[in-house]
Amino acid sequence: MTIRDVGEFAFLRRLRARLPDAFHAGQVRLDVGDDCAALALPGTTVLTTDAMIAGVHFRPEWAPFDVLGCKAFAVNASDVAAMGGAPTFALLNLGVPPDTPVEALDAFFDGFLAAAGDHRTSLVGGNLSMASQFTIAVTLLGRVASGLVTRTGARPGDDLYVSGTVGDAALGLRLLTNGRSDTVDPAAVHALTERFLQPTARMSVGCALADRRLATAMIDVSDGLLQDLGHLCEASHVGALVEADRLPLSDAYRTVAGSDYTPALTGGEDYELLFSAPRAARRAIRNVAGACALTRIGRVQPRDRGVGVVLPDGVHPAAEFSGFDHFASRAA
Amino acid sequence: MTIRDVGEFAFLRRLRARLPDAFHAGQVRLDVGDDCAALALPGTTVLTTDAMIAGVHFRPEWAPFDVLGCKAFAVNASDVAAMGGAPTFALLNLGVPPDTPVEALDAFFDGFLAAAGDHRTSLVGGNLSMASQFTIAVTLLGRVASGLVTRTGARPGDDLYVSGTVGDAALGLRLLTNGRSDTVDPAAVHALTERFLQPTARMSVGCALADRRLATAMIDVSDGLLQDLGHLCEASHVGALVEADRLPLSDAYRTVAGSDYTPALTGGEDYELLFSAPRAARRAIRNVAGACALTRIGRVQPRDRGVGVVLPDGVHPAAEFSGFDHFASRAA
Repeated sequence: MTIRDVGEFAFLRRLRARLPDAFHAGQVRLDVGDDCAALALPGTTVLTTDAMIAGVHFRPEWAPFDVLGCKAFAVNASDVAAMGGAPTFALLNLGVPPDTPVEALDAFFDGFLAAAGDHRTSLVGGNLSMASQFTIAVTLLGRVASGLVTRTGARPGDDLYVSGTVGDAALGLRLLTNGRSDTVDPAAVHALTERFLQPTARMSVGCALADRRLATAMIDVSDGLLQDLGHLCEASHVGALVEADRLPLSDAYRTVAGSDYTPALTGGEDYELLFSAPRAARRAIRNVAGACALTRIGRVQPRDRGVGVVLPDGVHPAAEFSGFDHFASRAA
Repeated sequence: MTIRDVGEFAFLRRLRARLPDAFHAGQVRLDVGDDCAALALPGTTVLTTDAMIAGVHFRPEWAPFDVLGCKAFAVNASDVAAMGGAPTFALLNLGVPPDTPVEALDAFFDGFLAAAGDHRTSLVGGNLSMASQFTIAVTLLGRVASGLVTRTGARPGDDLYVSGTVGDAALGLRLLTNGRSDTVDPAAVHALTERFLQPTARMSVGCALADRRLATAMIDVSDGLLQDLGHLCEASHVGALVEADRLPLSDAYRTVAGSDYTPALTGGEDYELLFSAPRAARRAIRNVAGACALTRIGRVQPRDRGVGVVLPDGVHPAAEFSGFDHFASRAA
């Protein structure tokens, strides 16, 4: 049965019946089913919107739709994490080809709602349109309890850190796009493709850094480490130096890419947190790193020294490494 | 020059430089250029999201892109008006074919920002992705100063009203889709197509009705009068009777459709406000109707009498008239 057979309104009625009770119920004056949701939002509210489009950001055959729903939540939650916030409410704007099976849409919502529920986030509104490409636009609201962490506070002399490991998602995307070569270790293939398909938003790291006021600037790594570092440096009016041999690379990364640092430096969609912090915070940052590694990968330097990478043969300007632009070449 | 030539980041940098100073600046802790916007939102915040997709909701050849930008704001503002609110902040999520001329995107933003500015609304965030169809997803926040008007408060015996005129946009869309027949009065063609291309969100009517607590329930007419009346009745657990000969029809409508009430009853995208109000409010409602007509078109009745239309030959159940469903047949 397709969405065309069921119809928009019948599908939405069914979906509404499946929504769990609202989190943050005291803030909800009105949820799905009216022209707008109505919320009372105390303190500082952060807002972000991001899109995933079939044929651009994913191919439907790569993963079940619940995985897609999960990722659609995570990529937005990552932006909230990068502010030191926690997600609270979501709006979902879907463009759906009319021949989409209802079971696929159900699975999408299952994945989205499960990921949202894990982060105590309520879906309070949305929109469903016909489209030729499956298009997912999420708007996420979040609450910042204490210090808002922007991109603007990095100072020369600060350390640079990144959470987790970098470059895995780009390698996973490359494996999905080019087909899985038999010469590559299957466990490594699995680990890398999972990192692309099921990224983890680093919520607890972001909140802990904000609560303890340890990070001077923070951004999530969605476009590639050097590209996002460039954004952070531009906003903070500083330069930075990344030491390639300090980059946290997974075993699967080393299996597939060996000692090639390029995917780690330029690959998008890791959804790790990149942040700067004063040297005096080193011990405190070691205490924050628990379930998720936080690795010191370099330092902030004055703006006129630019953004560079220390490789075995010397310092290379970041501009030597191709960045990531949605309108330049795209792997998917 | 296309967006592919300019690139995402260069385009966004240029766009940011063109943004006007923020409205409601005291509520803005951080606007465009970070992972999230950060706002302090007092009182009740209403939120809505809607999409316009090329080939589904519009065809790029029908109007300049600034008109498209204007409409993208208006269709969302209409949802805020239907709650009795005023828009405050917007997020814009665009999917753009790589061969889109930068001038077209500039024009789109000109139109969007002009419409937003007219309503003191600030664009505080967004996203730009590659897509095969030009896709516009807007998220709009609004402030409700006094009484929030939902769909749920209509009571049997209440009067039913609609603002402006109905059916024009559907006729305009039909003329755009089928080509402009030489047999049709050019002035009527112009009036109807403009109503489809440049709808007006009824902000001041919505706010005035909410502030004076005159409307018991309200919805905007986006899917068609009977369809949206059905939503209002379902939410209020009531029925309703519409008197077709009371429907406010424009001169252009009568020129093109004569005495056929069907486009007025079922045509989408009018973005007028449909609301219920107690009989005792009639005089007060006459005072609200100033620049925009408010016409009494029927009454609310008990749920078991259903939703019907009084035509010259008697009462017809609303179900006789085909509704509007994004996944059923679509004119565009």
